[in-house]
Amino acid sequence: MRKKESDKTRRATAARAKAAPKAATKVRKKPQPGRSVEAGLAELKARLREVGDLEFAGAVLGWDQATYMPRGGAAARGRQAAMLSRMAHEKSVDPAIGKLLDEIEPRAEALADDADDRSLIRFARRDFEKAIKVPPDHVERAATLRAAAFDAWTRARPANDFAAVRPFLEHNVELSREYAGYFAPFRHIADPMIDDFDPGMTTESIRNLFDALRRELVPLVRAICDQPGADDRCLNGTFPEPAQIAFAVAVVGRLGYDFGRGRIDKTHHPFCTKFSAGDVRITTRINEHDIGQALFSTIHEAGHAMYEQGVAEALADTPIGRGVSAGVHESQSRLWENVVGRSGSFWEHFYPALRKSFPNPFGAVPIEAFYRAINKVERSLIRTDADEVTYNLHVMMRFDLEQDLLEGRLAVKDLPEAWRARIAADLGVAPDDDRDGCLQDVHWFSGGIGGSFQGYTIGNILSAQFFAAAVKAHPGIPREIAAGEFGTLHGWLVANLHRHGRKFLPDELVARATGGPMTIAPYLAYLRGKYGELYRLPAEGP
Amino acid sequence: MRKKESDKTRRATAARAKAAPKAATKVRKKPQPGRSVEAGLAELKARLREVGDLEFAGAVLGWDQATYMPRGGAAARGRQAAMLSRMAHEKSVDPAIGKLLDEIEPRAEALADDADDRSLIRFARRDFEKAIKVPPDHVERAATLRAAAFDAWTRARPANDFAAVRPFLEHNVELSREYAGYFAPFRHIADPMIDDFDPGMTTESIRNLFDALRRELVPLVRAICDQPGADDRCLNGTFPEPAQIAFAVAVVGRLGYDFGRGRIDKTHHPFCTKFSAGDVRITTRINEHDIGQALFSTIHEAGHAMYEQGVAEALADTPIGRGVSAGVHESQSRLWENVVGRSGSFWEHFYPALRKSFPNPFGAVPIEAFYRAINKVERSLIRTDADEVTYNLHVMMRFDLEQDLLEGRLAVKDLPEAWRARIAADLGVAPDDDRDGCLQDVHWFSGGIGGSFQGYTIGNILSAQFFAAAVKAHPGIPREIAAGEFGTLHGWLVANLHRHGRKFLPDELVARATGGPMTIAPYLAYLRGKYGELYRLPAEGP
Repeated sequence: MRKKESDKTRRATAARAKAAPKAATKVRKKPQPGRSVEAGLAELKARLREVGDLEFAGAVLGWDQATYMPRGGAAARGRQAAMLSRMAHEKSVDPAIGKLLDEIEPRAEALADDADDRSLIRFARRDFEKAIKVPPDHVERAATLRAAAFDAWTRARPANDFAAVRPFLEHNVELSREYAGYFAPFRHIADPMIDDFDPGMTTESIRNLFDALRRELVPLVRAICDQPGADDRCLNGTFPEPAQIAFAVAVVGRLGYDFGRGRIDKTHHPFCTKFSAGDVRITTRINEHDIGQALFSTIHEAGHAMYEQGVAEALADTPIGRGVSAGVHESQSRLWENVVGRSGSFWEHFYPALRKSFPNPFGAVPIEAFYRAINKVERSLIRTDADEVTYNLHVMMRFDLEQDLLEGRLAVKDLPEAWRARIAADLGVAPDDDRDGCLQDVHWFSGGIGGSFQGYTIGNILSAQFFAAAVKAHPGIPREIAAGEFGTLHGWLVANLHRHGRKFLPDELVARATGGPMTIAPYLAYLRGKYGELYRLPAEGP
Repeated sequence: MRKKESDKTRRATAARAKAAPKAATKVRKKPQPGRSVEAGLAELKARLREVGDLEFAGAVLGWDQATYMPRGGAAARGRQAAMLSRMAHEKSVDPAIGKLLDEIEPRAEALADDADDRSLIRFARRDFEKAIKVPPDHVERAATLRAAAFDAWTRARPANDFAAVRPFLEHNVELSREYAGYFAPFRHIADPMIDDFDPGMTTESIRNLFDALRRELVPLVRAICDQPGADDRCLNGTFPEPAQIAFAVAVVGRLGYDFGRGRIDKTHHPFCTKFSAGDVRITTRINEHDIGQALFSTIHEAGHAMYEQGVAEALADTPIGRGVSAGVHESQSRLWENVVGRSGSFWEHFYPALRKSFPNPFGAVPIEAFYRAINKVERSLIRTDADEVTYNLHVMMRFDLEQDLLEGRLAVKDLPEAWRARIAADLGVAPDDDRDGCLQDVHWFSGGIGGSFQGYTIGNILSAQFFAAAVKAHPGIPREIAAGEFGTLHGWLVANLHRHGRKFLPDELVARATGGPMTIAPYLAYLRGKYGELYRLPAEGP
């Protein structure tokens, strides 16, 4: 069974990378020092809404390219998407935005601490200062390199030809170091990139988090893998596409994904994309011989989409009207996919319907066997195929290798060997070739080095922390899930996370929602509870 | 059986109407008087390609809105599409384009008379001079009015409420007169609008053409309608959607529509839209109780699309890389829909396949009966429902009413009555209400008054003239059609029309392709031949 992470993160990187060469230098209107803060704010919002609309228009072009575009459309589409991306960037670094912020900020202090507009101004300043630090020629060089690197990778991976991408990867490490340089001084060279994806986090804070998690995960994986493996053969049979789509649509509709403000289509890689608050789409991929692929990836993408659909209407079309970070976004997709979608309670409700849709083989498969099958843990080579226990080890090794490359401790030429050594050490398996090794992920070939992986594990950690907080507030949630009712859980997520968009930094958001900082304890408790029972592990000491 | 005209024309108008309020006044680079004509041309092409790409991006948003957008996406989508339209307009009136043209033109004389670039410069100048004549505030006022008028019309038509749209229509007449004023002096106030759709044509030239055609059509319609009517009940049965789509796709693929550079989707109103030379899409509407609707509208839209797909590669992404006028565009859709698609030869080949797809009722319907059914002529109220003989009378009355409104001879308040009087006089029928009278077409509520109807009849006239020229060059074409072979005809159209895009003005194009000016003789001969036989009319005198 394959799990596909959202392309959202990759897209964000790609969009940034493609952004434009030229910062516009004209100022259309001079700020008028005497006018009201409201007038200035209105102009700021209008300008930023236009930046957003250009990005959303680009997203429509991207969605069409992935879903329905005939092959003949490819060349012009690439040019058109790059143009929109460049225009969005040009407008986002317009000095008029800086002047508006200069004018508004002193007077914004009169606003209440938790006023939406105060937060909007804060985030607009943050985005603007980051954007103008990067010279237009860097943006252009990075976009050019990454387009070429991506193209080379699409050919090199099937050919297992690391040598073909090595120069691109070397160049990309240089460019990422150069990018970080614009944000100097920093404590660690990866910090600027990490902050792009997960605002407020640093290499140090992530390393502390990951080290603590790793200390617990490695023995847990060992303990599980010492047990007899689960039998997941029932997941591989023949499952007709229309029935799979119908089942997945029924499930995510039940969870709370609003099809009046979204839709589902088929693509090669599943993703979630947003064109406005009222139009947040997901895609899926159907494998007629694997029931899990479309189902769990659809729930995953619906989790991302429900987050975006839940943002408060007042924040729509503003820079704070979207998900706050890669980690929090991933927490929503993983919560619905794993904590809910792979739980026993969930299948208490849905298994009869699954059996009805696919009597062969599930008519003859007891629910316990199905539950074990969808939660099979095994040491494996491919991150996107990994179960929820081993998955984090895949993420951590990438995070560490990124640091090594950026710090210059690891040369690109030595990456394949470093990869093999690390996965053997952590997971006890080693790839036969680079195709299933360091060529498996697109990230380093379509975006920068540094920052694009940690969100997956932060998401796993937060998914359990948020779920635990929701259950603490509403202890009936697990019973409701077993009854096919998801409104209380969904409502809690909307009220405590979704509706805030980017109003609070991730740290503030986590503290408000859960009463404390991000912590691995709920996640470890979740994994130990679930997999301890599944694999009959001895109970932990006190 | 309903026939739907392409939305292309309406879309062109709407795009123009929505175009932007502010002409950008900055010049990015000063023209360098010493540089080569090639360098100037390259910059000109790059600027105009960007204008085109913004329009194409807007077209993607429009296509998505009509095909797959969830209802929640509507509000933001309207704003995003208007933004792209405004940006395209701003870039199209950038004074830098005028300076580049000033710089290039004197030196372009060294180019061969029929060089693509020489033509490109000529059209770029034409487009630029037209665009800068219209003040930005007019563009904005027109866009605002027409958005409101369209909105009012969508509610007024079903409610049969002419009073509700009357103020909008009065305002629109004023705006159209104002628009024409920017192009003064002119011989007739409708000329500037006509020139937007059919470059080189004027009120006078069209009136001459239409008067001559009308003199022949009115007695022809009378003669046909004096005969017993055709029985077209076989076209109304139950025709499952998938089989209708499969049949229509097979037909247009056979005609030459390239699905590698296009696709077909379902929409409320069929249309053809272009995103690049490699991506020209069509849409269709299926009525499960009317076999003709999807089939003939699909052939119609494929005719538009094959025109755009046939433009020479060298012209792609330039301002001359698209169809030259509303009339020539319509000639291609009508040629394939009517001259070919409603011909006896065509059905000699396709009727067995239609029977196989829909044995009930066609297994029991002789081909002659089917042929008569799809060519039934009758006096009717709705233009888009009209057969190919009476259709032109619907167009001509609209053309005349537009002139009357613009000249001030007809007040908007008197339009409903004028409409009833005219259709009674021309077609011998009169609508019970305005819904089937002067409220039936969207054109006057979504674009300007003047210029948007004549293309339909020009298209009919040219469809026969082009077909006759093709058959003169290749007398085997009718036999090939009966054998299901369309390559010779399609090839002739590509070589003589499509590949030239806007390289030549319509008059030049017609003369090159047919050896003479536009003439109604082939069209009258076509109608008399076909319908004389169908309705057993007495042969004309010598």
